[in-house]
Amino acid sequence: MTPLDDSPKEACGLFGIYGHRDAARLTYLGLYSLQHRGEEAAGIVTHDGREMHSFKAQGLVSEVFNEERLHQLPGRAAIGHTRYSTTGGSVLKNVQPLLVNCAKGSVAVAHNGNLVNAYELKQRLESSGSIFQTTVDSEIILHLLARAANGSFEDSLGECLRELQGAFSLIFLTERALIGCRDPNGFKPLCIGKMNHAYVLASETCALDLIGARFLREVEPGEVVVIDAGGPRSLFPFQGTNTALSHCLFEHVYFARPDSVIFQESVQAVRVKLGRELAREHPVAADFVMPIPDSGNFAALGYSLESQIPFAIGIIRNHYVGRTFIQPAQEIRDLKVRVKFNPIREIIKGKRLVVVDDSIIRGTTTRARIKSLREAGAKEIHMRISCPPTKFSCFYGIDFPTRKELVANRLSLDEIRKFVGADTLGYLSLEGLLKCVGKPSSYCTACWSGQYPIPFGEEGDKFALEKHAGEGKC
Amino acid sequence: MTPLDDSPKEACGLFGIYGHRDAARLTYLGLYSLQHRGEEAAGIVTHDGREMHSFKAQGLVSEVFNEERLHQLPGRAAIGHTRYSTTGGSVLKNVQPLLVNCAKGSVAVAHNGNLVNAYELKQRLESSGSIFQTTVDSEIILHLLARAANGSFEDSLGECLRELQGAFSLIFLTERALIGCRDPNGFKPLCIGKMNHAYVLASETCALDLIGARFLREVEPGEVVVIDAGGPRSLFPFQGTNTALSHCLFEHVYFARPDSVIFQESVQAVRVKLGRELAREHPVAADFVMPIPDSGNFAALGYSLESQIPFAIGIIRNHYVGRTFIQPAQEIRDLKVRVKFNPIREIIKGKRLVVVDDSIIRGTTTRARIKSLREAGAKEIHMRISCPPTKFSCFYGIDFPTRKELVANRLSLDEIRKFVGADTLGYLSLEGLLKCVGKPSSYCTACWSGQYPIPFGEEGDKFALEKHAGEGKC
Amino acid sequence: MTPLDDSPKEACGLFGIYGHRDAARLTYLGLYSLQHRGEEAAGIVTHDGREMHSFKAQGLVSEVFNEERLHQLPGRAAIGHTRYSTTGGSVLKNVQPLLVNCAKGSVAVAHNGNLVNAYELKQRLESSGSIFQTTVDSEIILHLLARAANGSFEDSLGECLRELQGAFSLIFLTERALIGCRDPNGFKPLCIGKMNHAYVLASETCALDLIGARFLREVEPGEVVVIDAGGPRSLFPFQGTNTALSHCLFEHVYFARPDSVIFQESVQAVRVKLGRELAREHPVAADFVMPIPDSGNFAALGYSLESQIPFAIGIIRNHYVGRTFIQPAQEIRDLKVRVKFNPIREIIKGKRLVVVDDSIIRGTTTRARIKSLREAGAKEIHMRISCPPTKFSCFYGIDFPTRKELVANRLSLDEIRKFVGADTLGYLSLEGLLKCVGKPSSYCTACWSGQYPIPFGEEGDKFALEKHAGEGKC
Amino acid sequence: MTPLDDSPKEACGLFGIYGHRDAARLTYLGLYSLQHRGEEAAGIVTHDGREMHSFKAQGLVSEVFNEERLHQLPGRAAIGHTRYSTTGGSVLKNVQPLLVNCAKGSVAVAHNGNLVNAYELKQRLESSGSIFQTTVDSEIILHLLARAANGSFEDSLGECLRELQGAFSLIFLTERALIGCRDPNGFKPLCIGKMNHAYVLASETCALDLIGARFLREVEPGEVVVIDAGGPRSLFPFQGTNTALSHCLFEHVYFARPDSVIFQESVQAVRVKLGRELAREHPVAADFVMPIPDSGNFAALGYSLESQIPFAIGIIRNHYVGRTFIQPAQEIRDLKVRVKFNPIREIIKGKRLVVVDDSIIRGTTTRARIKSLREAGAKEIHMRISCPPTKFSCFYGIDFPTRKELVANRLSLDEIRKFVGADTLGYLSLEGLLKCVGKPSSYCTACWSGQYPIPFGEEGDKFALEKHAGEGKC
Repeated sequence: MTPLDDSPKEACGLFGIYGHRDAARLTYLGLYSLQHRGEEAAGIVTHDGREMHSFKAQGLVSEVFNEERLHQLPGRAAIGHTRYSTTGGSVLKNVQPLLVNCAKGSVAVAHNGNLVNAYELKQRLESSGSIFQTTVDSEIILHLLARAANGSFEDSLGECLRELQGAFSLIFLTERALIGCRDPNGFKPLCIGKMNHAYVLASETCALDLIGARFLREVEPGEVVVIDAGGPRSLFPFQGTNTALSHCLFEHVYFARPDSVIFQESVQAVRVKLGRELAREHPVAADFVMPIPDSGNFAALGYSLESQIPFAIGIIRNHYVGRTFIQPAQEIRDLKVRVKFNPIREIIKGKRLVVVDDSIIRGTTTRARIKSLREAGAKEIHMRISCPPTKFSCFYGIDFPTRKELVANRLSLDEIRKFVGADTLGYLSLEGLLKCVGKPSSYCTACWSGQYPIPFGEEGDKFALEKHAGEGKC
Repeated sequence: MTPLDDSPKEACGLFGIYGHRDAARLTYLGLYSLQHRGEEAAGIVTHDGREMHSFKAQGLVSEVFNEERLHQLPGRAAIGHTRYSTTGGSVLKNVQPLLVNCAKGSVAVAHNGNLVNAYELKQRLESSGSIFQTTVDSEIILHLLARAANGSFEDSLGECLRELQGAFSLIFLTERALIGCRDPNGFKPLCIGKMNHAYVLASETCALDLIGARFLREVEPGEVVVIDAGGPRSLFPFQGTNTALSHCLFEHVYFARPDSVIFQESVQAVRVKLGRELAREHPVAADFVMPIPDSGNFAALGYSLESQIPFAIGIIRNHYVGRTFIQPAQEIRDLKVRVKFNPIREIIKGKRLVVVDDSIIRGTTTRARIKSLREAGAKEIHMRISCPPTKFSCFYGIDFPTRKELVANRLSLDEIRKFVGADTLGYLSLEGLLKCVGKPSSYCTACWSGQYPIPFGEEGDKFALEKHAGEGKC
Repeated sequence: MTPLDDSPKEACGLFGIYGHRDAARLTYLGLYSLQHRGEEAAGIVTHDGREMHSFKAQGLVSEVFNEERLHQLPGRAAIGHTRYSTTGGSVLKNVQPLLVNCAKGSVAVAHNGNLVNAYELKQRLESSGSIFQTTVDSEIILHLLARAANGSFEDSLGECLRELQGAFSLIFLTERALIGCRDPNGFKPLCIGKMNHAYVLASETCALDLIGARFLREVEPGEVVVIDAGGPRSLFPFQGTNTALSHCLFEHVYFARPDSVIFQESVQAVRVKLGRELAREHPVAADFVMPIPDSGNFAALGYSLESQIPFAIGIIRNHYVGRTFIQPAQEIRDLKVRVKFNPIREIIKGKRLVVVDDSIIRGTTTRARIKSLREAGAKEIHMRISCPPTKFSCFYGIDFPTRKELVANRLSLDEIRKFVGADTLGYLSLEGLLKCVGKPSSYCTACWSGQYPIPFGEEGDKFALEKHAGEGKC
Repeated sequence: MTPLDDSPKEACGLFGIYGHRDAARLTYLGLYSLQHRGEEAAGIVTHDGREMHSFKAQGLVSEVFNEERLHQLPGRAAIGHTRYSTTGGSVLKNVQPLLVNCAKGSVAVAHNGNLVNAYELKQRLESSGSIFQTTVDSEIILHLLARAANGSFEDSLGECLRELQGAFSLIFLTERALIGCRDPNGFKPLCIGKMNHAYVLASETCALDLIGARFLREVEPGEVVVIDAGGPRSLFPFQGTNTALSHCLFEHVYFARPDSVIFQESVQAVRVKLGRELAREHPVAADFVMPIPDSGNFAALGYSLESQIPFAIGIIRNHYVGRTFIQPAQEIRDLKVRVKFNPIREIIKGKRLVVVDDSIIRGTTTRARIKSLREAGAKEIHMRISCPPTKFSCFYGIDFPTRKELVANRLSLDEIRKFVGADTLGYLSLEGLLKCVGKPSSYCTACWSGQYPIPFGEEGDKFALEKHAGEGKC
C-alpha cells in the first residue's frame, strides 16, 4: 500500500473544553472538524475531578473512537489532538496528547507547531538526567515544566514557555485547569469559544461551529489563557520581549478550512481575493476556469469572477479514497492520480482551460494531473497557482519535503512550466499575495521568501530529534 | 451510532473483467470508482481456470479488501459488486456476488435493479422444492437458471431471463465466460470497455476511466453479451417482445457520477442543462447561487450560467464523515446536519441566496440545512430543485422511503416551502426535466409521474421477500 | 503460520435447547464444552417466536461470540455447532448451522457425521435444478427436506432421512420445534437433557454438566425426537429397516471428553480399561508409566494400575498454544513438537519408560516425541497404544489422512517401531479393545478392521463434494 | 465479561537473546514458554545495530505477535516480557519492555519483581524534575540510570541498582549489550543459556528447552551479566553488602513450570516431595488421591506414591477457557468453577477422596470445587494443601489479594475446613515444606511466616505508585 498524496502536511489540530459534562464527546466532534489538520492519529485526555483518562491511537478520528471508548473518558474537562507527524515518526508512542505525572501533578499537553531549539533543549535535559519515551518535541515541554522552579503552576509554565523557540500553539490539561497558549510570533492559530457555561479552545473556528459554540476571540500571540472554575484569565509570560508577528500565511493559502476565520480573516474570503489577484497578474484567454478540487476551489472562483471566464467543475474528486491504496501488480499509468481525480472529458475536450491550484510542491502531482487533462482532450492548459513558488523548507511546523525536493528550488519558472506540461504557468507574486490579507507585515513568508522570522542553527532541523534518537552513547 | 444520511440510496455498482492477469485488482479499482452506488458491502468472485474464488464483506471497498485478500483471488476473470440494500437486509449472507454450484456448473452473479415478480417466482420455486439461503432476489435468478431446460448455457440463460419482470442489469461469471445483460426496458446502465486484450463490463463509464479502459458502447436493453476466449458475442433473448425503453432518469438527476456517460449522455452535461432550465422556470433576484455540495453542484452551475447570478461555494462539506457517527449524550441541535455541512457565515451573512439541490425526499434534511443557513445570517433563501416533486415509490431499484414518508406526497408545494423554511421554492417541471435529455420518451419518470412502465401486484413490493421470510409453514 | 497438530480430527459438536429465555447463552456454554469436537468455526441460530437469528464465524467459540453478538440472538430456542471440516473446506460459507427458507418455512440444521451417498444425492438434486451454496453435505439434507412431499413436517423429515446413507447425528431448529435425530447405525452420539422446563440436546453429556442440565437418556439410533411446546415426542422413520448398530469406537478411544458418558459407557472408565488390557497384552519391566498428555492420560493410569509400575507425568503440555504458530525462519529442530510438549529431563533421565498414547496416525508426531524423550536421557522407551493399528480410512466422519498416509497401512509392526524409534511397541489387539466395552458387537471398527458397516461406491469418498465442486459444465 | 480465576498471579516472564539473526522470533518463542508467568500483555524490543524497534500490546503472546509484527523487529539482539500487573494498571502504556532515550543512549528494560522503595524513589525523582509516563516501577529504574553519574554504563548501572530495594530480576537491552541482573536476595529466578554462538537470558529453563538452548547456569543473586560482542562478563555491584538469600519459595510451590529448574532444583521434583511430606504429615484412609489440575498434579502424585492410595484423574480441566468469559444473564450456579473444571461423576461417586492443591488463597474457589465434587457424589473429601496457610501479603512481586482477603488470615484451621466444606483439611507445615528444598535457609517464607527479609515502610505498599498517581499538586 502506498500513501496517496504528496500535498504539504499540516502539523495538528487542537481542541479543549472545560466545564461540560459531555467533554469527551464534544472533543471528539471538535477533532472531527479538525481532521484536515492531521489524518494519522488522534487522542483525547479527560480529567474527571479525581484522575486523568486517556485514549489515543493511529487512524482517523472516526476510526480511533467509538461509543465504548468515549464512555471510558469521563470528566468535565478534556483536550484532544489530531496529528500529522512533524517531528516524531508516526508510531503509537508519539500520538498526542502526551500525559505525564510529575512534581506538578498530572499534566497532559497537545501541541501544534515545531520548536527550532528542540535538539539543544533535549541535549541539555538528557545531560541532566531526563529520559525520553517519545520523539515528539512536545515531550520536551513537559520536562521543562516539571523541572521549573517550584512556584505556582503559572510561574512554572511561564518559565517553561520562555525556554521554547519556534512555533507552538499549546493546550494543557491539568488537574485544575484547561490552559491554552500561543508563541509570541503567533505562528499557528488558536481560538476561544463559549458554549453555555463551558469554555472551548480550538485550532480553527470551524470546530466551534460544529458543536454550536460561540466564537469569542483568538488567543493572542504570547498569551496564556488559564480556564478553571473561576473562568478564564490571561497571563503574558513573554511581556517585555518584543517579538514581531509571523502568522503562517500557508494556513490561508492551503491548510485551514475555508469556513474558518483565522488571524482575524475569513479563509475563503482571502482565497477568493488570491484568485482575483491571480487573474489580474496572469490574465489569459480561455473557455473555462476550473479548480483542482478542493484545494483550488475558492481561488478558481475568484479568478473566474475577476476574469469573467466561466467557472466549471471539470475534475471529479473521489472522496472515498482512503489513506492507503492497493497498487495493481501491473502498474496502471498515472493510477495514483486518477483514483482521486477523474477529468470530465465532455467538459474538457477541445477547450482552453485555466486550471487553478493552491501550490506546487514536488511538481509530480501537477504534472500527472495536467497529463490526464491533456488525455481528456484539453486544447490549452493555463496553470495558475495562488501563491508564489515554494522554494524554502518550513521549520515551524509544515511538513514540506526537503528543500532539494521542492521543484521551485531546483528549476526556473519556464523549466517548471515544461516539467508540469502546461501551456502557460502563472504564480501569484509575493506582493500580490500580501495584498490579499489585512496586515501583510504580520505574516511569515519564509517558504517563499526564505526570510525566517526565527533563526535556527544546523540542528534546528525539524527531524533533529529523530535523527539523533539512535545516537546515544551507551 | 446513527446512519447520517437520508438521501435516496442506489441499488448497486457492477464490474466485470475477462482476460487480464490482474483481474481481481482491476475489479477492486472498478468497485472503488463505483462506491457511490453502494456503500454497505462489497464482494469479488474470480475464476482461475479451475475453480472460483470469492471474498465479500460489509464495509467500503477500501475496508473490505486489502493486499492479502486480493492475493487470494487469482484468475483472469472476475466480477465485483458494491451494494446498498434494495431487497435483503444488509446481513453478510446477502452480500453479492452470489456464487453457487448447480447442474450448469459454478455460476456467480451480481445484480443491479429490483424484480417486481420476485415474490411470485420465489413462491413457485419453493413450492417445487427450492431452498433459499439469502433474501436477495438475485438468488431467484440463479434458481431459475439452474432449473432451466438442459440445452446450452445460453439457452438456459435466455429461458431464465424471460421469467424476470422488473429492472435487472446483471453480470454473470461462469467457468467459461463473463456475461452481461440488461432488462429490455433498460432501467439500469451497463457499459462495455476494452483494455488491451481484456474486456470490461461496468455500471458506469467512470470505472473504465479509472483503470484506463476504452469505452466501447453500452450493453443494449434486452441484450446479453457473452465474453469468452472467442471475444464478445451478443444474444437477444427478448427479441420479439416489444418493450418500450424506460431508463432511470434519477440516475441523471442524482445517482450516477457526473464524470460518467450513461444512456448515451454526459451526466454532468444533463445536470448543467437541468440547472439552466430551472433558472428559466424559476428565476429570482439574488446575490449568489450556491449548491448543496456535491449533489447540487452542476445544476447550480447551470442556474448561475443561465441567470448570470454569481456562483458561490457557501457550504463546506466534511468528507471525513464516516458511515456512522457517535451521537453526543446531550443532543446538540442539528448536529447531524452540521457534522457534514458547515455554512460559511462570511459569504452568507446578509445575502439573498439561490440554493440548488437535486431533490427533496422526506424534507427534514432540507429543512435542517435551510435553518442552518438562516442561522448563518442569510437574508433570503430561494430553494431550487432540479427535478419535479418526488411523490411515488420506485419498484425498480431506488430505495426511496415509503410513499407516505415522501414529503411531496403529503404536502402541497406551498406547504413544503413552509415546512423546509424557504422564502421561495421552485421544482423543475417534468416537461422541463425531459427537455434536458436527448430522447425524453426513453425514460422512466414513475417517481414523479406515477406512471409505472411495468405493472406490479400487491406483492410487487420490493420488500416482499423479506416480509415473507419468516412466514413459512413448518 | 502452520497448523500444529496432526491428530485425527473430529467432525463437530452439536447443541440445542428449547424453552429457555437464555437459549443463546446456554448454547454458547454448551459449545464451549464441546470445543474439542471442532476448533475451526462455530455458529448459533435462534428462533424468537417470529423469526430466526444467526451468527457464525471461523475461530474458537470464545473468539466467535461476545456479549454483543449473543445479545443479537434472542429467543427461547437455539441450536449451535462447532466444526472441524469433514467435508467442505473451512471457508465461512460452510460454517454451520445452515439456515434456509423453503416451502417448509425457515429451517436450520447442524450435522455431525458424514454421508456416504452425498455425491449421488447432490448429482440427482442438481440435475433437477437445485443450487448449492456450500460444499457441506448438510446442505443436501435441507434440499431433500424442501423437496419432500407436502405432508406434515414430520412426514417430510422421515422421507428426507430415509434417503441418507452414512453417519448423521442432526439437530434441526424450525419455527415450531427443536428436533434431534441419529442415523439407525448410531454412529455418532447425541443425548437429551433437561434443565428446569427446558429440554437440551447435545453431542456429549459434558455439555449438560456445564449448564447444570440433568442427563435423561441418549437419542436412540434411528430415533427422531421432536421437542416443542408439548414437550418431547419420538418418531421412528426407519422402523422396519433392520440396521445393526455401529457406534464409533474411536469416540471412546480418543474423541469424546473423558468426563462424558456416551453409548451408555463412561469414557474415562473405558479408557482406564483399555490401559489395563494393554498392560496385560504388552507387559514390560520399566521405571515409570507416563502418558502423552492429555490423550494418553487414562490409558496410562490403567496401565500403571494393572502393571503396578508407578505413574509419572514426564511431559509438560503447553496449553497456551494457539491453533496456528509462527515458524522461525531458521528452522529449529522439532520445534513444532516441543512448543506443545516439553519432556522433564529430571524425571526421564536414565529411566526405562512405558509411554502410552491413544493412537498412531502418520507416525511422524510419535517419532518426534520419542526423539525428544531420548534427548532428555530416557534409557528405554516402550511405546504402548490403546487401540489396534489404524489402517483404514473412515467414511463416517473422522478426518483421518488418506489411507496411504496411515503409517500402519504402509509398514509392518516392526517397521513402525523402528520408524518411531521405540525400543518396543505394543498396540492393543482388536479383541482386547472390544473386551473393554459393554456390547462389543454394537461398535464400528472399520478404521482398524476394514469392515465397513455401510458400503460405499467409488464416489463415497468424503471429499467427493469438494472434488466435484469445480467440475460443472457451463 | 469476568476474569475467571482468583489464583495468585505472577509478576512476569523475562527473555533476552544476543547474537542471533532470528532474535525476535526466538524471543517470541521464549515468551510463549513463559506465558504462565503473565497472561495480560507482552512486548519485544530489538536492536538492529543502528536503532531500537519495539512492539507491545495487551493479550497472550500468540495474540500480540504475528508474522508481520515479528518482521518489523529486525536485529540480532532482543528482549521480551510477558506481564501480569504487579504495580501499574494493565493499561497499554505500562506494558513492558520500557524503552527510552537518555544521556546513556537508547535503553530498554524488562522487570520481574517489585520494589519496596518505589514510592520514595519516585517522590525524590519527581521533586528534582522527572516526569513519569507509566505507573510501573520499572520506569523508576530507568530514571535512576539516566541520572547516574557520568562514568561508564556499567558504573551508572551499579549506582542505579544500589538504590533499589526489593525484588528485581532485570534484563536490559542497550545499543551495545544485553544485560541481566538479579537483586542480591535472589528473589526471582533468572538463568543463562547458550545456543550456538548466541547467549540467552530467561526467567525459567523451560524457555531454553523450547528453543533448544543449553542451560549454562543461573545469574547469581547480586550479579550483573553483561553480554556483548566480547561474550559475557560479570559485575558484582553489591559486593561488600552482606545480603542473605531469599528465593521465592512460592515459585516452587505454584508459579514455575514443573519442567523448569530454578534455584538449582527441579520444580517437579520439589513438588513430588511436597506431596510425599504432606502424606506423612496428614495421612488418611481413602479410595483415591486426585489433584486439582494442573496446580496439584505433582503433589498429588507424591501423596499417592507415599500413601500407596491410587492416583486418579477425577476432574477434567477445559483448556479452551479464555481469559474472559461471558456470564449468562440468569446466573447458573457455580458456573465459573464448572466452565474450567468438570468432576467425573463415574470416578467420584461414593468414593473417599484425597484432593490435593497447591494453596488456598481466598477460599471461595476451593469451596466451589469441593461443592461440585460433593454434587458428583463424593463420599468423603480430604483436602490437602502442599504449603502452609497463606496468611501474609507479598511485597516482592506476587499479586496476592490484600491480607484481609486471605482466608487463612481471618479464620482458624477448623473454620477454613468448614468454610471450604472438606471432611478434613491438612496444610503442609512450614518445617515440612522446608525439608523438601536443598537449602532451606536460602528461601523467603514471608507469605506463610510473616518474616519479611526486606523491611518496608507504610508506603512500601505495592500499589503505592498507582494510589498516588492522581495526587499531584497542580
